[in-house]
Amino acid sequence: MEVLITGGAGLLGARLAKQLLERGTLADAQGKQASISKITLLDVVPAKGFSDPRINVVTGDIADAAMIEEVLTPRTSSVFHLAAIVSGQAEAEFELGMRINFDATRLILERARHNGNKPRVVFTSSVAVFGGDLPAQVPDTQVLTPQSSYGAQKIMGELLVNDYSRKGFIDGRALRMPTVCVRPGAPNKAASSFASGIIREPLNGIEAVCPVSADTPMWLQSPRYAINSLIHGHDIDGSAFGSSRALSLPGLATTVREMVAALERVAGANVVKRIRWEEDPAIIRIVNSWPGNFITKRGDAMGFQRDADFDSIIRSHIEDELGGKVAG
Amino acid sequence: MEVLITGGAGLLGARLAKQLLERGTLADAQGKQASISKITLLDVVPAKGFSDPRINVVTGDIADAAMIEEVLTPRTSSVFHLAAIVSGQAEAEFELGMRINFDATRLILERARHNGNKPRVVFTSSVAVFGGDLPAQVPDTQVLTPQSSYGAQKIMGELLVNDYSRKGFIDGRALRMPTVCVRPGAPNKAASSFASGIIREPLNGIEAVCPVSADTPMWLQSPRYAINSLIHGHDIDGSAFGSSRALSLPGLATTVREMVAALERVAGANVVKRIRWEEDPAIIRIVNSWPGNFITKRGDAMGFQRDADFDSIIRSHIEDELGGKVAG
Repeated sequence: MEVLITGGAGLLGARLAKQLLERGTLADAQGKQASISKITLLDVVPAKGFSDPRINVVTGDIADAAMIEEVLTPRTSSVFHLAAIVSGQAEAEFELGMRINFDATRLILERARHNGNKPRVVFTSSVAVFGGDLPAQVPDTQVLTPQSSYGAQKIMGELLVNDYSRKGFIDGRALRMPTVCVRPGAPNKAASSFASGIIREPLNGIEAVCPVSADTPMWLQSPRYAINSLIHGHDIDGSAFGSSRALSLPGLATTVREMVAALERVAGANVVKRIRWEEDPAIIRIVNSWPGNFITKRGDAMGFQRDADFDSIIRSHIEDELGGKVAG
Repeated sequence: MEVLITGGAGLLGARLAKQLLERGTLADAQGKQASISKITLLDVVPAKGFSDPRINVVTGDIADAAMIEEVLTPRTSSVFHLAAIVSGQAEAEFELGMRINFDATRLILERARHNGNKPRVVFTSSVAVFGGDLPAQVPDTQVLTPQSSYGAQKIMGELLVNDYSRKGFIDGRALRMPTVCVRPGAPNKAASSFASGIIREPLNGIEAVCPVSADTPMWLQSPRYAINSLIHGHDIDGSAFGSSRALSLPGLATTVREMVAALERVAGANVVKRIRWEEDPAIIRIVNSWPGNFITKRGDAMGFQRDADFDSIIRSHIEDELGGKVAG
């Protein structure tokens, strides 16, 4: 079977590809594990660090129909559609957000629909679909009143994934990811970028700005658990989703204060001193509109897993990204 | 001020235009009643029966950007976007539904955004946004899990209206209309078409088929109350909507059995005998996925009104459409 990953050069895309290469299989249309013969990584920049012959790196625009036609073929039986314009940028650049977060998603679903083999399509949605008046713990039955263009665009994608699945065009799954933390690499334009920055930078001996208050509730998932959730979300039977293919994934409920306390426990007080507290109203507005805690009964019952605590998230980051070493 | 009504040749569009001509005013951008100088009625067929010089009848495709550019100008300060592919047809013809119910809505909102005066845009949504596991009475906080393409497309329109309003591009309002009953004229391809047919046809001495069971719950609004809701929804201040511009309108909760009993009370047993009961699984599936009753606290608090009972709905139909006469 052949797999397409959009956003294939990104953190999740590249990690997912590595894990799929190791596993070697994914569920096919009948739900049986089948051997992966090819993984196409599509992104605006080339995915790097792959030597496996099963990897096919393609650089291009996911909103370009000819590009999607090239990478999503009748042999493609699984699509992980991870590419997106992140929340802060989609708010600042409305047209770009609509084009990539919505139009490209629609293009991919249309192509998948017509490729003739009803592919499994995993679409990454977000907690940004929620907003407005929210309970302290958001249930699976929470009405969606997004307060950002990114959130609105993600819901529109969810609705298409759901309707295309209901009609039998594809076998889709829309997974609302918690904020992935600790992301390696450079900061990005996501309003949530700080959540990784305040851990990653101090561990590297670099100062980081925390633009929100210590009380800010956070709903997190480590890269390891995020990848496991994507693969589990792909492999389970579509009927497990019930009346909607959109699902809030289980995550770890914490606060910025608890994150920083865990950093001190794991890496010491000197590391924590590298966090500078400087509130940014624009980021606070977006982040505070997202829920910080959920009751994910559906996702739990479907077998999705969550990180145990933030200490273990930091430790897995140090292990996976820093070779076990910290700038003390 | 100038007004654009899409679907202007339809039942609601034409009635709305007549009522606006009588009223003569609508709220302007500042919320003050301003004189209406022009009402453009856009539809695929020409709107008929208007002699008032303020009426501008235009025939064309609402998904055609050049057409929208022609009818939605910088002088347009109010848009009632009523045109849609109805539920049954949108389910059967997926592309057509997407093009008219979603793409055309987006086109209209984009044009309104760039016309420079932040127009009020009233978008008609539907109870078809609901589906799946629903409580007996659907609250304003109900999560949306539509079970039809029409419902999904209407939510996508709601999300755009909401996001465009939040960003200050337009001043939009998305009103979820109950099933409008009794609709005059011919049956249409809406799954709910029977609700009017089983009243309208027998009153005209014609046999009508009821494709659903007598127990089917219905959530209704007469054409009179529908028009009043559209105008009220236009005129109230946008801030009254709170964190979402989408709103479920108050309606009358009844059942097909109660509707037929009211018909017998108002028009006699002979009229009721013209209803033939013949279940249609395709229609039952769609209609049963819609809720039949709501708790509309938000809409009630905002001053939207509902019909008192179905007897009065039938009587207003006889008065408005039949000149007070019934085929006994």
